[in-house]
Amino acid sequence: MSFCIYPLYMYKTNIEVCLSTELLHLFDIRDFLVVIVDIFRATSTITAALGNGCLSIRPVKNIDEALLWRKQNYVLAGEKDGIKINGFDLGNSPVEVKNFDFNTRKMAFITTNGTYAINKSLLAKEILIGSFHNITVLANYLKTVAQKSLILCAGWKGNPCLEDCLFAGALVHELSDSFLIKQDAALICQEIFLNAKHDLVSFCKKSSHYARLYEMGIEQDLVECLRINFYPVLAGFNKETNEILPLNLKL
Amino acid sequence: MSFCIYPLYMYKTNIEVCLSTELLHLFDIRDFLVVIVDIFRATSTITAALGNGCLSIRPVKNIDEALLWRKQNYVLAGEKDGIKINGFDLGNSPVEVKNFDFNTRKMAFITTNGTYAINKSLLAKEILIGSFHNITVLANYLKTVAQKSLILCAGWKGNPCLEDCLFAGALVHELSDSFLIKQDAALICQEIFLNAKHDLVSFCKKSSHYARLYEMGIEQDLVECLRINFYPVLAGFNKETNEILPLNLKL
Repeated sequence: MSFCIYPLYMYKTNIEVCLSTELLHLFDIRDFLVVIVDIFRATSTITAALGNGCLSIRPVKNIDEALLWRKQNYVLAGEKDGIKINGFDLGNSPVEVKNFDFNTRKMAFITTNGTYAINKSLLAKEILIGSFHNITVLANYLKTVAQKSLILCAGWKGNPCLEDCLFAGALVHELSDSFLIKQDAALICQEIFLNAKHDLVSFCKKSSHYARLYEMGIEQDLVECLRINFYPVLAGFNKETNEILPLNLKL
Repeated sequence: MSFCIYPLYMYKTNIEVCLSTELLHLFDIRDFLVVIVDIFRATSTITAALGNGCLSIRPVKNIDEALLWRKQNYVLAGEKDGIKINGFDLGNSPVEVKNFDFNTRKMAFITTNGTYAINKSLLAKEILIGSFHNITVLANYLKTVAQKSLILCAGWKGNPCLEDCLFAGALVHELSDSFLIKQDAALICQEIFLNAKHDLVSFCKKSSHYARLYEMGIEQDLVECLRINFYPVLAGFNKETNEILPLNLKL
């Protein structure tokens, strides 16, 4: 009788990072569980809303579609090029969301990059929403299901963003005991996080996105997006109903 | 009479980074001077060859084209998926190049990613070749011409590579007094370099490319590619003659 001892890493699965939706074609997304990341500000706004009493969130493509949902008492939220859409209840802002009384209503939501990233990921095994607000509950879920996972950074009009890479690195680092990290983009993001982890706010003030928020006078959104585990809600996209829902899993 | 005092940054121009050839369509390349980077190993091999007596380098698309140039006494060098092409004088290896006597011959050169990056940059104002071998002479040239510049990381089959980002960060950092660094990809690369600068070799051993070199038994190429200023040759691509030449500029 002989024993075959495999090293521990043979039981681990991969965690990878896609730095921009423009690179997503390099991955066979059907193999992956995908975590959508748009830190400034779509995925931060989504987790803030679900954590603040919103029942579910429906990503919509345009204003006309959003207005149809208003007839069913949906809250309307969204931005175009960073600016709140005229006539909507909320912008794409976790600060506005925090101060809003959802009273168990649902929300229809337009964003420039976040919605686009979700729509490009529809063939994935499962789609989750990642932000600093829910990083630990998300990491715990990924450890539990232990499937090959891809962190998809939405970026800004195709360009990789500092803050999305920072979050991807934080999540990779949180998973480093349980997953294999051998892809260069994942290593790059982890390095970024390790360099910045002692002061995320100062680090993100270097980003081009912060400059845009500052110009619009909404720089307080930056601090709000970087609150770690402030809304510990596991958020997943349901492909059948086209809604983002809090997943009530007992982990 | 009044004086208008502009802050110093208004006289600076931008340095940006493209993390992969798959993202190059996001830039209007006609506005840029482009630095091609493929650290493991095309641009390191090119600078090593020019620094070691090779007269010029002609990137070619395939083996048949390379064989035509052999009739004109060209040295043939190249790889396919990392492996030296059968019948060629040299692989895509700075170690092999260092030990080769060029005796003022020219070289025809095939690589997987480096040649592709050059061909995608043909509309740029000027095309330069960057590696750790020539980083300071290249930085000095960029400071002298002071034009909007793009560091194009060749990557690996479209995926961003750790070592290309590391070099891009080193070059951005070297230019940080003279250029504006406000693009996120440039900031990401600079962070990577600042984290790794005390031990580039150990850092690059984390990369997926090192794993490929190691499997092929040519891991000594890694150390050779990381020799800073070992071949201080300014290398530029001449679009009219389709050759990479040492530019004999007096800086």
